[in-house]
Amino acid sequence: MTGIERIETAGAPAPAGHYSQATVWRDLIWISGQLPKEPSGNPRPGVSFEDQARLALTNLLAIVAAGGGSADTVLKVTAYVVGIENWPAFNRVFAELFRDARPARAVVPVPELHHGYLVEVDGIAVRADRV
Amino acid sequence: MTGIERIETAGAPAPAGHYSQATVWRDLIWISGQLPKEPSGNPRPGVSFEDQARLALTNLLAIVAAGGGSADTVLKVTAYVVGIENWPAFNRVFAELFRDARPARAVVPVPELHHGYLVEVDGIAVRADRV
Amino acid sequence: MTGIERIETAGAPAPAGHYSQATVWRDLIWISGQLPKEPSGNPRPGVSFEDQARLALTNLLAIVAAGGGSADTVLKVTAYVVGIENWPAFNRVFAELFRDARPARAVVPVPELHHGYLVEVDGIAVRADRV
Repeated sequence: MTGIERIETAGAPAPAGHYSQATVWRDLIWISGQLPKEPSGNPRPGVSFEDQARLALTNLLAIVAAGGGSADTVLKVTAYVVGIENWPAFNRVFAELFRDARPARAVVPVPELHHGYLVEVDGIAVRADRV
Repeated sequence: MTGIERIETAGAPAPAGHYSQATVWRDLIWISGQLPKEPSGNPRPGVSFEDQARLALTNLLAIVAAGGGSADTVLKVTAYVVGIENWPAFNRVFAELFRDARPARAVVPVPELHHGYLVEVDGIAVRADRV
Repeated sequence: MTGIERIETAGAPAPAGHYSQATVWRDLIWISGQLPKEPSGNPRPGVSFEDQARLALTNLLAIVAAGGGSADTVLKVTAYVVGIENWPAFNRVFAELFRDARPARAVVPVPELHHGYLVEVDGIAVRADRV
């Protein structure tokens, strides 16, 4: 019993290894790296970068919602992308999903990602009942 | 109205996309990835790694200051660098700017960065009025 | 005097540059990137990825312990790995060391690491006396 809660939601893929979708400690939600898998865990091969970004961010926001937050209460997102030329597409999808919310953000190029995906996102959010 | 504040300071480049320079929640400041741009947003092409590190870290510290912190109240910095052979130069500039402050830090090699830059930094700091 | 504590423990390698092993602010411990060095600071060349993962994570957990936490109070770990094919080995060692604890986690491929190492880990934990 540590007071740390783990998020488990069917709205995002179940963890593929020894970790939780997110941990919650007091007012903060710490979200694990999300890949562009279907919430069922099925891969969606051959989709565009833009669709991958939408799927990964949707998974992240589903976990935030399960932890009691929303796009408006996300403090920071880190996006790991294969190919910095995908920055404009990532930014476009990010704007579409976050609307009026503008969290802190870092976009970090990587040489590859698990299963050949092109984008992974993690982040930190506040529980909505605390803001 | 979420209680989350966004930092906007002319002391660092305006966000190039859908994000804030930093978000502030209670006592913590979450700083977005900072590239070695002039605060005006102008690129400074052809500068050395060392000058790029100084510019990126100066942008980060300007945002920290706008959020009510200082080098002394930075908890953690993550630096994304192209070429780990630049570690000594990064460390030298970091020491120069942080002086007696020794935050937690991770230096993460990346294959490339936006616009051909060689270093990006983000981090977390405490509001000085809270420490 | 900022109220921010720095961790210094002989249970993990001394910082190689201008940073602390970790900073502690109120209930949170911010851990610096840990490489697979011996706590003495000596490199252990030629060890397998699995042994490198064990060493890096053991260093991280020693710092967490020095800050008043434990595997159970780790909120998030980010692992930077050279070669995503090492994911299964990383996950195996992670499970071995974290047991019932399942923090949030992101595994981020990188092109290289300092000194030719294959894995680096950082993270955030809660002080055990606060949970």
